[in-house]
Amino acid sequence: MTADEKDKPPVALIIGAGDATGGEIAKRFAKGGYTTCMTRRNADKLQSLIQQIEQSGGRAYGFASDARQEDQVIELIEHIEANIGAIEIMVFNIGANVPCSILEETARKYFKIWEMACFGAFLTGREVAKRMVTREKGTIIFTGATAGVRGASHFAAFAGAKHALRALAQSMARELGPRNIHVAHVVVDGAIDTNFIATTFPEMYARKEFDGILNPAHIAENYWHLAQQPRDAWTHELDLRPWSEKW
Amino acid sequence: MTADEKDKPPVALIIGAGDATGGEIAKRFAKGGYTTCMTRRNADKLQSLIQQIEQSGGRAYGFASDARQEDQVIELIEHIEANIGAIEIMVFNIGANVPCSILEETARKYFKIWEMACFGAFLTGREVAKRMVTREKGTIIFTGATAGVRGASHFAAFAGAKHALRALAQSMARELGPRNIHVAHVVVDGAIDTNFIATTFPEMYARKEFDGILNPAHIAENYWHLAQQPRDAWTHELDLRPWSEKW
Amino acid sequence: MTADEKDKPPVALIIGAGDATGGEIAKRFAKGGYTTCMTRRNADKLQSLIQQIEQSGGRAYGFASDARQEDQVIELIEHIEANIGAIEIMVFNIGANVPCSILEETARKYFKIWEMACFGAFLTGREVAKRMVTREKGTIIFTGATAGVRGASHFAAFAGAKHALRALAQSMARELGPRNIHVAHVVVDGAIDTNFIATTFPEMYARKEFDGILNPAHIAENYWHLAQQPRDAWTHELDLRPWSEKW
Amino acid sequence: MTADEKDKPPVALIIGAGDATGGEIAKRFAKGGYTTCMTRRNADKLQSLIQQIEQSGGRAYGFASDARQEDQVIELIEHIEANIGAIEIMVFNIGANVPCSILEETARKYFKIWEMACFGAFLTGREVAKRMVTREKGTIIFTGATAGVRGASHFAAFAGAKHALRALAQSMARELGPRNIHVAHVVVDGAIDTNFIATTFPEMYARKEFDGILNPAHIAENYWHLAQQPRDAWTHELDLRPWSEKW
Repeated sequence: MTADEKDKPPVALIIGAGDATGGEIAKRFAKGGYTTCMTRRNADKLQSLIQQIEQSGGRAYGFASDARQEDQVIELIEHIEANIGAIEIMVFNIGANVPCSILEETARKYFKIWEMACFGAFLTGREVAKRMVTREKGTIIFTGATAGVRGASHFAAFAGAKHALRALAQSMARELGPRNIHVAHVVVDGAIDTNFIATTFPEMYARKEFDGILNPAHIAENYWHLAQQPRDAWTHELDLRPWSEKW
Repeated sequence: MTADEKDKPPVALIIGAGDATGGEIAKRFAKGGYTTCMTRRNADKLQSLIQQIEQSGGRAYGFASDARQEDQVIELIEHIEANIGAIEIMVFNIGANVPCSILEETARKYFKIWEMACFGAFLTGREVAKRMVTREKGTIIFTGATAGVRGASHFAAFAGAKHALRALAQSMARELGPRNIHVAHVVVDGAIDTNFIATTFPEMYARKEFDGILNPAHIAENYWHLAQQPRDAWTHELDLRPWSEKW
Repeated sequence: MTADEKDKPPVALIIGAGDATGGEIAKRFAKGGYTTCMTRRNADKLQSLIQQIEQSGGRAYGFASDARQEDQVIELIEHIEANIGAIEIMVFNIGANVPCSILEETARKYFKIWEMACFGAFLTGREVAKRMVTREKGTIIFTGATAGVRGASHFAAFAGAKHALRALAQSMARELGPRNIHVAHVVVDGAIDTNFIATTFPEMYARKEFDGILNPAHIAENYWHLAQQPRDAWTHELDLRPWSEKW
Repeated sequence: MTADEKDKPPVALIIGAGDATGGEIAKRFAKGGYTTCMTRRNADKLQSLIQQIEQSGGRAYGFASDARQEDQVIELIEHIEANIGAIEIMVFNIGANVPCSILEETARKYFKIWEMACFGAFLTGREVAKRMVTREKGTIIFTGATAGVRGASHFAAFAGAKHALRALAQSMARELGPRNIHVAHVVVDGAIDTNFIATTFPEMYARKEFDGILNPAHIAENYWHLAQQPRDAWTHELDLRPWSEKW
């Protein structure tokens, strides 16, 4: 570590800092003292989040970056490491399901769902890991889903992507653990309190009344917990679901 | 809840409060404000733990109780609920492996390993759950092991007991979750910093130098974390292992 | 192998040869040239099965034997090995579910379900394995269930027993495989065409019309297949379920 | 079914009919009465296999076809269905591992391993399923690997592809089972007797002497077994490994 690095607080990089989960994770790490770097495809949408963090006394930076584009990923991480600080935490939080019968699934969509939820995770995971191993320190957390442990009718594309993500997490954890990099996979099982759920599935959103959907801030608290675990007691996988969820 | 119950702080009951993991879990919940009740077959061995907790300002009670004896379990829980407080947390922390070739395993030992790690968990889990459902509140945590998710040569007895324990945890979680009881299973994967490991497997204990064995206090912190999760984001299973552990 | 052993055809021992699955397995191995030994707690109920096998040109023996009683198990296997032939195949086919809320499950029933589905499997598996390893040859198949891989509400006892059985199968497979003993676990997932289903769950039995319940003879064919696998390509676990079953 | 279709024997389509596993599977289905269609990227390499099948009295056709190219897959299946017969069996048998540290894995290779083992399976599985559902009949078998159920150091790409393949198999099985299409996933765990292993890993190949590597003909027999299962007793996943394999 150079003198320069010593002066800069460590960075938590949140890939896919949407309005809900990613945003709350960013706030949680900012509150914990990390300089928070966040990405979305459209950086304008990060402005409100940056302001919230700064108003709470935190440091936050937003980047337009497409996690599926290798050159953008490399450039992003080089920039952060050179100018902002050493990335100590990386959270990968991208992925979307668009259910479809296998008989009608298009090649384009099947590919895109994998590219977004898995290929982007590979690119950012690899680039960040390269830096972390030189410092022998770091935590990488991948946001997974139930579809990562179980296929389902009309879920071939999403389950494929999330299974592959889980395989990535496990493979990285087994290779990088002995190099002091903590890699964890979180199985989020249930609807999350987001605008998307509120507007698209109002009857599902109604469960919020009795805590039947996940609160993004509570998800974030678990990511923080994972990142705080001393290295003699690391968790590599945990599930999160509402009390009322059938599983 | 009666007026009387309101006045008494909630109880954390630790079944199997040995010198290491169970003891640290007890201390952690005492520190968090719970009245801590602890069991061992020999209550004398709990004195030092009770003193430590009391000297730190906590409340602690020790009981000689054999978790495999239904009448003792019933009596214990009735006594605590009647005289000490409502059991809000229960941690089951008993279980021991004595590896043996299947060709030489005795019926007696095969039974005893199951009785200790699984049957006792069933008895205490059931009795505590009966009280928790009337209050619609509570957390039950079972200490599992890698043998609970994977059989291994010379581990038939222990793997059987721990698999059955995991099945108990899952079955209880699925039945009692919708009644607001949080049931979780912790997969402890690795040697723990105990006197037993120190004296019996010194070469394994030497890994402590580089954090290669689990610190009981760090395990306890994860149990505390589980018990603190808001009900919209419960974890039902998490693993804990040292960074250097092969898995 | 002694001269005597050479003269006797090998034995297939079916522990728990009821009217359905166990009986069909017995017939299948008899048809394949094995001398078939069958147990039930009440040997009278085996007479019809023995007659069917003998009328088809097979050799069959019935025994009253309680798989949970170590002395009975030892005596049974000694008797067969001494007087009938070398046990080359053992199928363990006992187990019964009696669903119950965890809040009302009795210690007696919880124990009995485990004793029947798991402890008996341990006793017979161990005794048979002792003989097989001396000959470096044999196949042991345990009949499992979905409850062996997944706990469920009101299934704590059965899931515990079947999880423990699966752990036994895995542990034995890993220890005994390198000694040329093939140990396999079959996950039967769905209702089977039995008198019990016909009389107790008539609406479930009605699915038989469209092949929606398992035909015991078809289950048996898979056991035969497992026992025929050359040792370079052994299966250690397979599932069997009707096409229409939700899983 | 048209009069024409009635006259043509059903087709078994083997995607990726290499010299070993795929070739033996093709022979097995040809022997069982199926017209066998086989693909490789280079059709010339299929000539010897076609001759062997024809000399044994079977019917075989070879096609140059790249399973990753949607138009080629569509054209292939249209051609077979129009000119050769109804595809009743499809086996997907492509996939290759090139182990690599996550730190050095290239985006190109990570993508290609997925494209080959998973994307090709999706394209052919979907196209074949479209025809099978109209006839309400068919069997689809995907060749998987241990990497499909467990990530490992230096296996991120292969484990990702094979996990995604398993998710595809599960998702298709759950959607198409109720439409009478049997979808199965085979976990091949161990080295196979191939030229590649013989020349690249001679010390591994030496295990052949004691049946320590998988015989492709024995693998094929299990595929045949799966395709023969009556629909009341389908297997959705089975593993195959040598007796001496550590697992």
